[in-house]
Amino acid sequence: MGKCINVGIIGYGTVGSGTVEVLLDNKTTIKRKTGIDINIKSIADLQINKKDDKYLREIPVKTTDAYDIINDPEIDIVVELIGGYNPAKQFIMDSLKNGKHVVTANKALLAVDGLEIFKLADELGLHLGFEGSVGGGIPIIRVIKEDLAANNINEIYGIINGTANYILTKMDLEKKEFDEVLREAQQLGYAEADPTFDVEGIDTAHKITILATLAFNTVIPYEKVFVEGISKIKQVDIDFANRLGCKIKLLAIAKKHENDIEVRVHPTMIPERYILSKVVDVFNAIYLVSDKVDRTIHYGRGAGARPTGSAVAGDIINIARWIESGCKKTIPILGFKDKYTQYYPVKDINDIRSSFYLRFNALDKPGVLSKIAGILGKYGISISSAIQPGESSPGDVVPLVFLTHETLGRNVTNAVNEIDSLDVVKEKTVVIRVEGKK
Amino acid sequence: MGKCINVGIIGYGTVGSGTVEVLLDNKTTIKRKTGIDINIKSIADLQINKKDDKYLREIPVKTTDAYDIINDPEIDIVVELIGGYNPAKQFIMDSLKNGKHVVTANKALLAVDGLEIFKLADELGLHLGFEGSVGGGIPIIRVIKEDLAANNINEIYGIINGTANYILTKMDLEKKEFDEVLREAQQLGYAEADPTFDVEGIDTAHKITILATLAFNTVIPYEKVFVEGISKIKQVDIDFANRLGCKIKLLAIAKKHENDIEVRVHPTMIPERYILSKVVDVFNAIYLVSDKVDRTIHYGRGAGARPTGSAVAGDIINIARWIESGCKKTIPILGFKDKYTQYYPVKDINDIRSSFYLRFNALDKPGVLSKIAGILGKYGISISSAIQPGESSPGDVVPLVFLTHETLGRNVTNAVNEIDSLDVVKEKTVVIRVEGKK
Repeated sequence: MGKCINVGIIGYGTVGSGTVEVLLDNKTTIKRKTGIDINIKSIADLQINKKDDKYLREIPVKTTDAYDIINDPEIDIVVELIGGYNPAKQFIMDSLKNGKHVVTANKALLAVDGLEIFKLADELGLHLGFEGSVGGGIPIIRVIKEDLAANNINEIYGIINGTANYILTKMDLEKKEFDEVLREAQQLGYAEADPTFDVEGIDTAHKITILATLAFNTVIPYEKVFVEGISKIKQVDIDFANRLGCKIKLLAIAKKHENDIEVRVHPTMIPERYILSKVVDVFNAIYLVSDKVDRTIHYGRGAGARPTGSAVAGDIINIARWIESGCKKTIPILGFKDKYTQYYPVKDINDIRSSFYLRFNALDKPGVLSKIAGILGKYGISISSAIQPGESSPGDVVPLVFLTHETLGRNVTNAVNEIDSLDVVKEKTVVIRVEGKK
Repeated sequence: MGKCINVGIIGYGTVGSGTVEVLLDNKTTIKRKTGIDINIKSIADLQINKKDDKYLREIPVKTTDAYDIINDPEIDIVVELIGGYNPAKQFIMDSLKNGKHVVTANKALLAVDGLEIFKLADELGLHLGFEGSVGGGIPIIRVIKEDLAANNINEIYGIINGTANYILTKMDLEKKEFDEVLREAQQLGYAEADPTFDVEGIDTAHKITILATLAFNTVIPYEKVFVEGISKIKQVDIDFANRLGCKIKLLAIAKKHENDIEVRVHPTMIPERYILSKVVDVFNAIYLVSDKVDRTIHYGRGAGARPTGSAVAGDIINIARWIESGCKKTIPILGFKDKYTQYYPVKDINDIRSSFYLRFNALDKPGVLSKIAGILGKYGISISSAIQPGESSPGDVVPLVFLTHETLGRNVTNAVNEIDSLDVVKEKTVVIRVEGKK
């Protein structure tokens, strides 16, 4: 006969409706796999009275008050899908205090202010699923916590924002500037009216904070994550990247060193031979380097109603199976039993070594190149290749492109500051980090 | 303080020693994550007296008799890593009967004769981990059973044999013939002395049988899987593939239709724009198409001591966490609760539609091309593109290459049989299926 698990969902937006669709469309499939009836008893949404679809019509309780779910003794699992910090946090905390297991896809909340939530859930022996918070439908949270549990994961490289990846892909394919592609993405619904979180790297930073916390078994203070978005990327840089055999991606990078870690988000040039360079449009991929299993890549749709709904539903199924087994929880929310307060220092971006793409915009006149090269040399930056400007007339402003060998971020910052103050340099120098080229 | 789980490992070959290395090197990491001491109490291997390394020296009990482990009341988890059908099956069955949880990476046994084992483990409420059986270190078994549980998985495309992929990659890069690359792979330890299982697709067929069983929630009779290896692939075909914008991969393909399924293994041409075409050397990748999460790709090292050892260790950790929770098992071995005996008919390869690459080897003389084209037309096969032979003298045997539109396998088999019986056709026609071209 199997048990029946009652679920209440708070928030009927994109992910909320996707989750309901997945659970209702695949009710038979889920029952066949688990033997459990997963019953969506109630949905709370401030606009619920204005919403209607064939799925919603099957839900017994529709309410505008989240506490109709949080305080319902029949509800086993509360699913928080409203996003944002508050009241989402309050809803989650109150659900836990009422003995409910919780599923959420709220990366902003978990990255910035998750600690109190994780602690409370662990103390109360309750589950908190958040597979949908990173990589949409890509199985990655439980993969890190469980499948790769025998490994020390030392490096993460993620393309984990679909909007930014879509914009960079279109800029590359259609040779359009950022602003134009953004407008089109907004019209298609791939970018929000206020795209700041996506294009400025904030959403990516939230997600890499969660991944690095799980992978490195230490809490990462979100405010220490270096974040740079893609809004300053120009067509000319995409063109130069192609000439250098590279693609520009908004990459989240996290590395664990002996005594510290680095966690950063910025546009990055990667060689075309890397599989990550083939991750296009709204697709996401997470590339892990672990000490025993070595490299793994996890690829799929990083957003959208049904992919993220699939991850949320997977969490619900997982928790339902645990409830049915009648046992205590043995896997801590973050996958490790150490105290949460053990922090590793997060490296300052200026102390991180990498190669750099530098595009100077300088007057085309004698001596300019040697002046710039001289300043780079003064800061110990050596050049691995340079692209000559095309045809121009003396007095034109031309792009001068250099690829550097590995050097400290600080050296580049200082050199570029000095170069940008030269009379002959007419625009701010464009600096893009490069991975995978020596 | 945490519990101590005792593990006994049968078989100290590549995967056995890799598993021990992972568990011992990362003992502290695993303890930090789980709170559990995973203690390798004993290792059984017929050659144990001839083996010695720093890991082995830390193991309390070394024996040549597997039953010293199977009958040891202190052992919680028996790990079978000797491979092959027997005595591996007997060891697993006896371990289960003695109340032990089992971990194995034995794909041949599970694919061909797993049913009795799965049934017994489920009846006794014991765990049977087999993450290491497919895709080496790539998390895929539990991903299908748990993370994607809310989905109907409808298609699988896998590059799941590292040896075959290594050989095809080298043939492509170094322009060498199969035999030469195979010899080099054997010298490097990437291919076994008897490479039949790997190069003839048998190992790939074992693995897709397991994946399709899990993904489609039905038992796949292994003997119904169509299998064709890579030993007949010639440099000339690789060259033509490149000219067509494709790569040749040994692909495992499984698709679920309304009333039947297809499961097959054969060399396949795929367009270079597909990410799977970028999976090179010994790397593996599994591409899934699910109804809700859509496409996902799972990539990593498909073999080797440490990657597969990581998967086996992950299973051990997972089971240890369950034992610690003191609860009954709720996830069936195959991830679904239906009876095992529900079979879907497996489509005959002749009843499967696809595009084909056909290389005819015919005399270069007038009328030959139209004769061949005429026979193709008679069987309803239409051509999407053709590659003209290069310079040749009348009377030479030249390759004639056609790419067909989608057609039934049966049509191609019949047409090729008729064409190969022509006087002017001098060698057996090479037939390679094509995915992703219409």
